[in-house]
Amino acid sequence: MKDEREQGKAPIPDIVIGRLPVYLRTLRLLADDGREVTSSQELGEHLGISSAQIRKDLSHFGEFGKQGTGYNIEFLCRQLQKILNVDTIWPVILVGAGSLGTAIANYQEFESSGFRIVAVMDEDLQKIGQPIGHGLRIKDFADLNQLVRETRVQIAVMAVPAHAAQRVAAQLIEAGLNSILCYAPITLAVPPHVRVEYIDPVVHFQHMTYYLR
Amino acid sequence: MKDEREQGKAPIPDIVIGRLPVYLRTLRLLADDGREVTSSQELGEHLGISSAQIRKDLSHFGEFGKQGTGYNIEFLCRQLQKILNVDTIWPVILVGAGSLGTAIANYQEFESSGFRIVAVMDEDLQKIGQPIGHGLRIKDFADLNQLVRETRVQIAVMAVPAHAAQRVAAQLIEAGLNSILCYAPITLAVPPHVRVEYIDPVVHFQHMTYYLR
Repeated sequence: MKDEREQGKAPIPDIVIGRLPVYLRTLRLLADDGREVTSSQELGEHLGISSAQIRKDLSHFGEFGKQGTGYNIEFLCRQLQKILNVDTIWPVILVGAGSLGTAIANYQEFESSGFRIVAVMDEDLQKIGQPIGHGLRIKDFADLNQLVRETRVQIAVMAVPAHAAQRVAAQLIEAGLNSILCYAPITLAVPPHVRVEYIDPVVHFQHMTYYLR
Repeated sequence: MKDEREQGKAPIPDIVIGRLPVYLRTLRLLADDGREVTSSQELGEHLGISSAQIRKDLSHFGEFGKQGTGYNIEFLCRQLQKILNVDTIWPVILVGAGSLGTAIANYQEFESSGFRIVAVMDEDLQKIGQPIGHGLRIKDFADLNQLVRETRVQIAVMAVPAHAAQRVAAQLIEAGLNSILCYAPITLAVPPHVRVEYIDPVVHFQHMTYYLR
């Protein structure tokens, strides 16, 4: 189904792609509850999105439900995993072993979602060699290039201070990574082939306070 | 300028509001670098957004720059802080004192951005009373109602497991909170007057892997 993109059809809007992981997450929670079938109506109520929007989003990728019988949850999960390329495990490196990096390294949800943190790196000599996360030891960020060669990792998480973020990102990109999840409160300058997503709680807080009196 | 909303004009699109904190963050980094003036072109290049988009977004709120001379950074920062209601300090409570909650409690950027974590709460009796963050001690989540009465807090951060998140959210809303930043990988069911924003690294990872081969 992804081949549609290679057949010269219009690319699927990025905002649609951004909703698919949320659909997948919701479907998996339903499956964990023992549910086998759902509908665009039920998903829409869970997510605060119209059922028409959900059907339209999914229709970009094929026909997943039958009129009147809804979606088979297990099947739709597998299809969404294929579409999102998470029917495999992606290696991820985490840069920054401070308080936030430690929390990310400890997070339990990555492996079941298609991701494994294969290395945690830092520049702080005091931290290098210390245990972190699930059976890892903090590695020297100076060894980045070797690690990338060995693991063929494409994805990094950056949990570093804002003042270090641009330099760290440049080193990651230089080493060959092309996908960065940035927790530093900064917008990175990156070449066009590199994709960056951002997590900044302040942006969310300030979005909410706009609506508060 | 916010009074426009009360004068019956069309509401400003939420997606515009969502970009303002990113503009503010970028302007403050420029100010930290000692810069006094910027332009929509420069901001656009920093952010990967067109300068026309930035001018259009800001024009919802008034005239902030002069043709040819650009924006006074300090002035525009203050205006954006007023628009976003962060020309004050909002009290925030953090629920969940695990690894992630500890990292959030330690985070340095909140106070300068309009927010102060005034309490960290947990249900784990082993954790209650322990020090956390900047001079706080973990409080019993059972004392939520009293804390909300005392602090008049409206905003909560939830760093709790997915299986507890809906119950915790219901208690927060029952206690009177109306703005929740949810780190649990779940979509919460909330009444219409409650605003929820979500942070889930898996959603970002899966968005990126769609584009990877």
